Amino acid sequence: MNTGFDRRRLPIGVFDSGVGGLTVLNELRRLLPQESLIYLGDTARVPYGTKSSLSVTRYAEQAARLLIERQVKLLVIACNTASAVAVEPLTLRFPGVPVVGVIEPGARACCAETRSGHVGVIATESTVNNLAYQKAILAQRPDIRIRAQGCSLFVSLAEEGWHDGELVEQIVARCMAPLLDEAEGDAGIDTLVLGCTHFPALKGAIARVVGEGVRLVDSAVTTSKVVREHLIERGLDRPESETGHVSFLVTDGPERFARVASYFFDEQVNAAQVELVDLQHFATA
Amino acid sequence: MNTGFDRRRLPIGVFDSGVGGLTVLNELRRLLPQESLIYLGDTARVPYGTKSSLSVTRYAEQAARLLIERQVKLLVIACNTASAVAVEPLTLRFPGVPVVGVIEPGARACCAETRSGHVGVIATESTVNNLAYQKAILAQRPDIRIRAQGCSLFVSLAEEGWHDGELVEQIVARCMAPLLDEAEGDAGIDTLVLGCTHFPALKGAIARVVGEGVRLVDSAVTTSKVVREHLIERGLDRPESETGHVSFLVTDGPERFARVASYFFDEQVNAAQVELVDLQHFATA
Repeated sequence: MNTGFDRRRLPIGVFDSGVGGLTVLNELRRLLPQESLIYLGDTARVPYGTKSSLSVTRYAEQAARLLIERQVKLLVIACNTASAVAVEPLTLRFPGVPVVGVIEPGARACCAETRSGHVGVIATESTVNNLAYQKAILAQRPDIRIRAQGCSLFVSLAEEGWHDGELVEQIVARCMAPLLDEAEGDAGIDTLVLGCTHFPALKGAIARVVGEGVRLVDSAVTTSKVVREHLIERGLDRPESETGHVSFLVTDGPERFARVASYFFDEQVNAAQVELVDLQHFATA
Repeated sequence: MNTGFDRRRLPIGVFDSGVGGLTVLNELRRLLPQESLIYLGDTARVPYGTKSSLSVTRYAEQAARLLIERQVKLLVIACNTASAVAVEPLTLRFPGVPVVGVIEPGARACCAETRSGHVGVIATESTVNNLAYQKAILAQRPDIRIRAQGCSLFVSLAEEGWHDGELVEQIVARCMAPLLDEAEGDAGIDTLVLGCTHFPALKGAIARVVGEGVRLVDSAVTTSKVVREHLIERGLDRPESETGHVSFLVTDGPERFARVASYFFDEQVNAAQVELVDLQHFATA
């Protein structure tokens, strides 16, 4: 009889400011159905995209502490704003647990996708301002020209369920106008990175605004692949014959979370399954 | 020589989730230029309008503790969401400091304004759901018919500087459609309460959408009058010959606060004047 503790059966921790990271959870479920997942949404402090790097780093550390206490084998920061500032601090602080962000995989996909070498990035104000995508893309391909545009308003649209239709397209067009105008004089971008996990909800409207010649890159797919690589490398991947389970933690409003989750996640979420947790106990220095 | 401590010279504390309460600060400056004011914006946790009553009450208590430590003589909750849940708990917890919210004064103005007895209220999701305005209005005039509509998206529009123009009017019209459609079958509302301190920034667009027959009620003006009454009643009003001073505290991003403040506050705010504070030290049970 084998009574040994099997680390491969431990869950993967997925952390986001709220519901946006559920687009990443979807892809993880699709690629790794055998893995169990704990999703933590910091709904008490959402959104992160308009907050300072210092605050976002602190929030990410608190979230990581809670997930590590729940014995996750790997940590996914399923939020661009938090990935932009917290991957390195978390990796240093918790050396025993691999940390995967969404920006590095998103940049990788973008570099693989572009033909013209001219790309656009839309993200929250904070992600654009700290140049996270610009740096990650240029580190891989210094020849690429990048236009970045803050579109914080898309987060509210996504959460309110305004995903499609003429009015949404008009709003999207206005938010993205500076990026498109600028790019046009330059023969135009051929690839657009959706640099916020909320934005895939508006994918249809965004695609119509940018036109057929522009490919949209959503980092969720690439992130899942990077997670699988990490697991395999460390011998932490669970056998494919097993079945994973998903659980949800939020810092505020389980009912609202369950309701809004349906815009981003393909599986049904019931409020009764969503556990309310407090991150303030995990205050950092 | 009078060396006695003069409580009348103490500042008034004004608290909001972020920048919206600056519309209330404007009116306080206008009516009571002799009073000093400390404005606290909880920008690390903004917005409150989509968060639970429990969290918002806790945040309001932390803010009140910090302001009372700074020796304010009166506390204004310049946020509808927080006023809806926290006026009573704060009054009980801090009996020495009068607490004024914006809902009661807003309801009072609405009751005085309506002729037809049929009014509308637009507010955040949370304020609408906890029936705060509905209760406050009916307590004064049980004959009034009220239609309430959540318009959380207006908060982002206001903060992004999208205040006017055709597209903004289209968004406003779509958000308010359920309220207006419903009201129309009923001979229409004649008064509309702007039940969120962010909404006065969109006043022009809202006015055009509802049409000339509808008066807009912004609780900031009435709230200032209630503050003055409280001060006079308690002998805490500062002589009109003196000059008040305004200072700002935020829990995140002084630079962003100073920039966005210009949409809501008539005086210039420099980031250097904005002090960063931490409310987590004031954690409540």
